[in-house]
Amino acid sequence: MERIRRNERMAALSRLLTASPNKIFTLSHFCDRFGAAKSTLSEDIDILRSVFESFGLGQLDTVTGAAGGVRYRPFMPQKEAKEFLSDLCTELCSPSRVLPGGFLYLSDILSMPDIVGKMGTIIAGEFYDVHPDFVLTMETKGIPVALMTAQAMGVPLVIARRSTKVYEGSAVNINYVSGSFGHIETMSLSRRAVKEGQRALIVDDFLKAGGTAKGMIDLMGEFNVEVVGTAFVMAKKQPHSRLIRGEKSLMTMDVRNEEPDTLTIIPAEWL
Amino acid sequence: MERIRRNERMAALSRLLTASPNKIFTLSHFCDRFGAAKSTLSEDIDILRSVFESFGLGQLDTVTGAAGGVRYRPFMPQKEAKEFLSDLCTELCSPSRVLPGGFLYLSDILSMPDIVGKMGTIIAGEFYDVHPDFVLTMETKGIPVALMTAQAMGVPLVIARRSTKVYEGSAVNINYVSGSFGHIETMSLSRRAVKEGQRALIVDDFLKAGGTAKGMIDLMGEFNVEVVGTAFVMAKKQPHSRLIRGEKSLMTMDVRNEEPDTLTIIPAEWL
Repeated sequence: MERIRRNERMAALSRLLTASPNKIFTLSHFCDRFGAAKSTLSEDIDILRSVFESFGLGQLDTVTGAAGGVRYRPFMPQKEAKEFLSDLCTELCSPSRVLPGGFLYLSDILSMPDIVGKMGTIIAGEFYDVHPDFVLTMETKGIPVALMTAQAMGVPLVIARRSTKVYEGSAVNINYVSGSFGHIETMSLSRRAVKEGQRALIVDDFLKAGGTAKGMIDLMGEFNVEVVGTAFVMAKKQPHSRLIRGEKSLMTMDVRNEEPDTLTIIPAEWL
Repeated sequence: MERIRRNERMAALSRLLTASPNKIFTLSHFCDRFGAAKSTLSEDIDILRSVFESFGLGQLDTVTGAAGGVRYRPFMPQKEAKEFLSDLCTELCSPSRVLPGGFLYLSDILSMPDIVGKMGTIIAGEFYDVHPDFVLTMETKGIPVALMTAQAMGVPLVIARRSTKVYEGSAVNINYVSGSFGHIETMSLSRRAVKEGQRALIVDDFLKAGGTAKGMIDLMGEFNVEVVGTAFVMAKKQPHSRLIRGEKSLMTMDVRNEEPDTLTIIPAEWL
C-alpha cells in the first residue's frame, strides 16, 4: 500500500469517524486501513480530538477495555445551539403559520435534513449519559428528528403506529386519551420491534397536553422497557396541566386564544 | 487567530464539507474560518478530493461561476454498494420475515440509521444528475430512507399523508387505487409543501403493484410538479403488471404462493 501522509490520514479519519457516530473503532482497524503504526494513529487521534474541540465539531472519546477504541460523538456547542434555535424561533414566529385550533405549521421545518440534523445533535447531546438502546417516536411528523437523534446516538429508531399494519407482524396495541382532544386513540407497535429490559428515549415533534407521550410511556410499560428521557421539538406553553414530567423541549410556543398576532416562540431555557 | 497546520485544516474541512452535502461553500468562507490564503485552501481541497476518491468516501466538486465554490457529494463505490446490498439480502432472506399476505418484515432495517444512511447514499448517487428540488415519500415506513436520500442530495423531504391533518393547513387530496388490494385510498399533501414547476424524486420502501407510487405521481401532477425519478428499497418480483415504469429498486424479492421457504431476495442488477 502506498504510504499515506498525515494530512491525508487526518482527512479520511475525520470522515470515517464522523460518518458512524458512537461506533467504537479499534486503532488496529485504522492501522490496517492506512498501513500505519499504532503510535502514529494514536497521535492522529489526539490531533483530531483537539481540532474537533477547537472548531466545535463534536467530541472524540477514547474507550478503554476489551472492546475499547475511539468513538465520535456529535455535540453542538451551547452557543451555536442557542443561535440556531433563536434564528429558527424568529423564522417560525410568523402569524401565517398559526392554523385553526392553535396549531403551528411546522411540517416544512420538520423535514429539512439540515435542520432536523441539528435538532437531533442537540437532543442527543443531552441524553448520551442515560444510554438509551433506541429512540422511540410516534408516526409521522416526529420521525425525521427522531431518526437524526438516533443516528447521532448510534442506536435504532423505533416507530409506533396509529394502527396495526399487515407488514409489521403481530403487534401490541394500546388505547390512550389524546390530552388535547379528549379522544380515545390507538397506538400499535410490532412485537419484534423492542426487547424486554431495553431503555427508550422518546423523541417527538410537538407537546401539547402530553397524551401521546403518556401513551408511548404506557406502551413501553407493556414491553417492560424503561423510558430514560423525553424530548420534543416544540412545546405549547403551560398552563396546560401536562400528563408527563421532566421533558426537554427545544422551543416553547404561546398563542393566546388562537389569535395569530399573539404568537411567541422562544428557545429552550435549559440549554 | 492562532496559526492552523494543514493536517488540522484537512480534518476540519473534511468534517465541515461532509456535514452539509451538496451545499456550495466558497473558498473565502474557509479562508476566513482558518485564517489561510486562497491558494493554500485550493491545495487543501485538491488533497481532500484525492483522499476521498482513493478511500471511496464521496466526491468533491469545484463549481464555477458567480455562486461557485466547493461541494461535497456522498457516493458509495459500486463494489461497496453491491457488497452492502448483498449482505443485507442474506440477512433479510429469512423465512421468519415472511408475513401473511406475502409481505416481508422490514421495519427494523428501515429505521436503522446506518442502514438507511447507506441506502440514501446509493439512491442519491443515481439521481444527482436529474436535479430534484425535493424528495417525496408517503408516510410511514419510507420516511427514514427518503430523509437520508434528501440529506445526501441537500434538498428538503416532503411527506404525503394518508389523510388531511389539522396541523398541515389546507391540503390537496387525491384518491388512488391501491394496486395490491384494489381499495380506494386517499393521499393528502399540504398546499404549502411544494411549489409549481419544481422537480420531485419519489423514494419509498416497497413496490408491489405500484398503486401508491402512481398515486404520488398523480398528486405531483395536481401541483404541476415533474417527477424526475422513482426509487424503492424493495420491489416484489414481476409478473405483477406494474402501474409505473422506469423505477430503481435496491433489492428484489420473490416468494411463491406466500410460502416462506421459497423466499429469495437479490440485489439490484442496475448497480
